[in-house]
Amino acid sequence: MSSSARSDEGGMGVGLLGLGVVGTAVAKAIVERHRSEDPSVPLNVVAAVVRDTSRKRDVDLDPSVISTNLDTVVANPDVDIVVELMGGVDPAFDYITKALEAGQHVVTANKEVMAKRGSELLATAAENNVHLFYEASVAGGIPIIGPLMNDLTANKIQSLRGIINGTTNFILTKMAHEGADFDDVLSEAQSLGYAEADPTADVDGFDALYKISVLARLAYHTEVPVDVIHREGIREVHAKDFRYASELGYTIKLLAVAQANGESGLLSRVHPALIPLDVPMASVNGVLNAVEVEGDLVGPLWFQGPGAGPNPTASAVMGDVIRIAKGAPSNGSSSSAPKPFPIASMDDHVCQYYIRLTASDRPGVLANVARVLGDADISINSVLQKDTDIENGHADLVIMTHPARESNMQSAVSSIKELDSVLRLDSLLRVETYGDRA
Amino acid sequence: MSSSARSDEGGMGVGLLGLGVVGTAVAKAIVERHRSEDPSVPLNVVAAVVRDTSRKRDVDLDPSVISTNLDTVVANPDVDIVVELMGGVDPAFDYITKALEAGQHVVTANKEVMAKRGSELLATAAENNVHLFYEASVAGGIPIIGPLMNDLTANKIQSLRGIINGTTNFILTKMAHEGADFDDVLSEAQSLGYAEADPTADVDGFDALYKISVLARLAYHTEVPVDVIHREGIREVHAKDFRYASELGYTIKLLAVAQANGESGLLSRVHPALIPLDVPMASVNGVLNAVEVEGDLVGPLWFQGPGAGPNPTASAVMGDVIRIAKGAPSNGSSSSAPKPFPIASMDDHVCQYYIRLTASDRPGVLANVARVLGDADISINSVLQKDTDIENGHADLVIMTHPARESNMQSAVSSIKELDSVLRLDSLLRVETYGDRA
Repeated sequence: MSSSARSDEGGMGVGLLGLGVVGTAVAKAIVERHRSEDPSVPLNVVAAVVRDTSRKRDVDLDPSVISTNLDTVVANPDVDIVVELMGGVDPAFDYITKALEAGQHVVTANKEVMAKRGSELLATAAENNVHLFYEASVAGGIPIIGPLMNDLTANKIQSLRGIINGTTNFILTKMAHEGADFDDVLSEAQSLGYAEADPTADVDGFDALYKISVLARLAYHTEVPVDVIHREGIREVHAKDFRYASELGYTIKLLAVAQANGESGLLSRVHPALIPLDVPMASVNGVLNAVEVEGDLVGPLWFQGPGAGPNPTASAVMGDVIRIAKGAPSNGSSSSAPKPFPIASMDDHVCQYYIRLTASDRPGVLANVARVLGDADISINSVLQKDTDIENGHADLVIMTHPARESNMQSAVSSIKELDSVLRLDSLLRVETYGDRA
Repeated sequence: MSSSARSDEGGMGVGLLGLGVVGTAVAKAIVERHRSEDPSVPLNVVAAVVRDTSRKRDVDLDPSVISTNLDTVVANPDVDIVVELMGGVDPAFDYITKALEAGQHVVTANKEVMAKRGSELLATAAENNVHLFYEASVAGGIPIIGPLMNDLTANKIQSLRGIINGTTNFILTKMAHEGADFDDVLSEAQSLGYAEADPTADVDGFDALYKISVLARLAYHTEVPVDVIHREGIREVHAKDFRYASELGYTIKLLAVAQANGESGLLSRVHPALIPLDVPMASVNGVLNAVEVEGDLVGPLWFQGPGAGPNPTASAVMGDVIRIAKGAPSNGSSSSAPKPFPIASMDDHVCQYYIRLTASDRPGVLANVARVLGDADISINSVLQKDTDIENGHADLVIMTHPARESNMQSAVSSIKELDSVLRLDSLLRVETYGDRA
C-alpha cells in the first residue's frame, strides 16, 4: 500500500492542473464537502495551476494555493494526486508523464491524451507503481470505465455501443424534433454554449472517436489506435433524412461502436446511423449520453446519464480521487500483459444502408440504380420516391438495402454517382443492426 | 495487503457454498475461462459444498473437490475466498461469520442475509480485515453495488428507484400487455420457471425489500432495518387497473425506492406504482431490472440489464472475486463510521393516488366520495366512470387525486369504505412522482 498510503498529517494532497468550471467543481467537492463529510479519507487541495491567477473563482480556496507555476503541482512532493483538467495532448502528455515518474497518482478527464497516448501513460504509471485513472474522460458522470475495469472483468465484451458526444446528440435531437437543418441548429447550440466556436472536435466525430478508443482499449485489453477507427461526423445529415428515416421507422444518432467478431476481429467506428425507433438508443435525447455494453456472461447492460457538465465530470473525477485515497490496488500486474486483438477492417462491416439520391423523374432510373446495386451483390429492401420537383424533372429516391458489405456498397456508390439519371447522391447512412428488439 | 495477497503456489483458492445453477456458472467461469485467460490473477476452485454429491453437474471439476463437508470450505486455510450461494439467513449467517472470523474473504449473492444481518457481517469483516462483497445480491449482473461503493462516492445520493424483482416485473408486464389477471399470469410464470412454487418472496415484495434495504444502507451509509421499509406486493393489482391506468397515461410496476428528504429523512418503500408512460421506467419490461440513481453531483443515472439468471449472477460474483484477488483496499476505515440518518415515516409520504371503487350507479356518489376526500384535505385531479353494470346498478369509479399525504389518504380510505354508496374499494395505488419528464 505504500504508493497509496495517506500521509500522517492532513491526509492526501491534491493538485489541480486547471481551475476552470470542472476544476472549480472538483475543488468545491473537496473543500466544501469531502473534508467535512468523509474524515476517513482526508483530502486537501494543495495547489492549483491556472493561466490567470486574477480571475475570480467560485470556490473558497486560499489564494496562496493558486498560481501559474507548474512546479507547485507536478513533482511537488506535497501533491499525492494530480488532477489533470487541461485537455489536449500537448503539454498534458508531458505533465502527466512527469507526475507519474515523480511517483504521483494522476486522475484525468482528458480523452484525447488517453486515446492518443494512453498506452504509454498507463505503462509509465505501472512502471512507477502509481495510478492513472480516467473515469471522467468518457461519458461524463456515467460510471463506465469503473464497471469495465472492475465489475465486468469476468466477461468477454462482445460490443460497446454508445451515444457519447452530447453536442452532436443535442444537434441531432433538435433536427429530429424540429425538422431543422444542421447549420441552423449548430448556431443555436453554439449560442447556448453546447457547441464550441470551432465545432470540429464534436461535429466531425473526433471527440466520440477518442472516447470509443479509450473504452475499446479497456474492454478488449488491446491498443486501438485512433487512426484505425472509422470516423464520420454529422455535417452531411440533412433534415430530409430525419423525415424519411422516420417514415421507415428510424431516427438518426451519432453512434460510437466497438464490436468484436470472432472471425474478423475488433471493429471500431464512429458515424451517424439509423436507429430503429423501438430500441432504447433511439430515445437518448439532448445532451444525454448512453452506453450499451454486451458481455458474454452478463448479457446486455445499459448505462445512461449526463455526459458532460462541471458537476457530473467532478463526480467522476472525485470517484477516482477517493478510490486512490482509499488505497486502490496496484495496477502493475493487470496492465502488464495486454493481449493482442486483431483489428477488423471497415471494408468488412455488414449492415443495411440508407441511400438518398436526387434523380431524374423518369422511367428506368430505379432499374438503373437497382442494377448497379445488384452488380455489387446488394439487394433492395424498400424504396421511397419523394418530393417530386415537376418543374425541374427530378425527385428524391430513398433506398433501403438489405445487409451489404461496406466495400461492396462503396464501389456501388461510385458507380451510382456515374449514372446519367442520378443528379446527386445526397446521403449514404448505415443502419445499426439490433438482433433482439424486445 | 496481507489480507488480500495471493499465495505463491497456484493463486487464490475459492470455496463454493452451493453448486446449483449459479454455483456451476461461477465454477465454469473460473475453471474454463479465468484460469487460462487472466494468468495475472490466478484462481482455483479448491472445494465446493453441496447437499447431494451424486448429482450431475455441468462443469469440469475434480470430483474430490465436491463434498457435503462444510469444513472443506469454511475456515479451510486453503480457501482464501468463500463464495456463498445458499441463500436465506440460516445457516448462511453463521457460515459467513465463521469464514470471516477465520480470515477468509466472502463473496455472496444472498440479499436476505445482507438485508437482515448485513451490518453485523460487514462489521465482522472489518474487524477481521477481510472483504465481504455482495454485488450479486442486487439486480443480478447490473453493476450497482460497485458504482455506489466506488464510482459515486463523492455524491450525496438523493434517490434510488428501481425495478429489482424480475418475477413480478414479468407478471406485471404480461398483465399490462395481455390484459390477463394476476392468478393466470402467476401460473404461467411458475410453469416457465420465472416464479417459485411458493411465490411469496417475489409477489409479496420481500425480495425487492431485501434488495432496496441493501442498496439504501450503502447509498446512505446508514442502517435501514427491513421492518421500517414499507412493503406491498402485487396480488391486489388487477387487469382492470392496467386498462384504466393506460387511459390515464400510466402503466403499473413494482417499484423499490429509497429517497432522502432533508426534512423528513430517508424513506424506503416497495409497492406497485403507477408510472407515467413517457419515463424510461415504464419501458422496463419482462425480467429486466433497472435502477435509477440520482446523485447531487452527477444528476440522474440509469442502470439496466438482466436482473437474474446463472450467468449474469456469475458475472457479478466473479467481479467481486477478481476484485479481491487483485487486492481491493482494506474496508476497515470506510465502514467503521456509518452516519446516522433519520428514517422517515411512510405516513408522511406525499404522492398522487389512483383509487378504484365499485359504487352504486346513482347521482351523488361522487359527491360523497369527494366530500370524504376533501375532509382529509385531498383534492381530485380526474375521475373516470367505467364498466357500468346496469343490471346490478353499479359501476367502476376511478379517481386520480392531486398529491396527498399518505396518512390523510389512509384515513380517507377508511371513511370511503363506510359510505353506503360504495360497494367495494378495489384498488388504492400510488402514482410515482417524476419531477422532470424529458
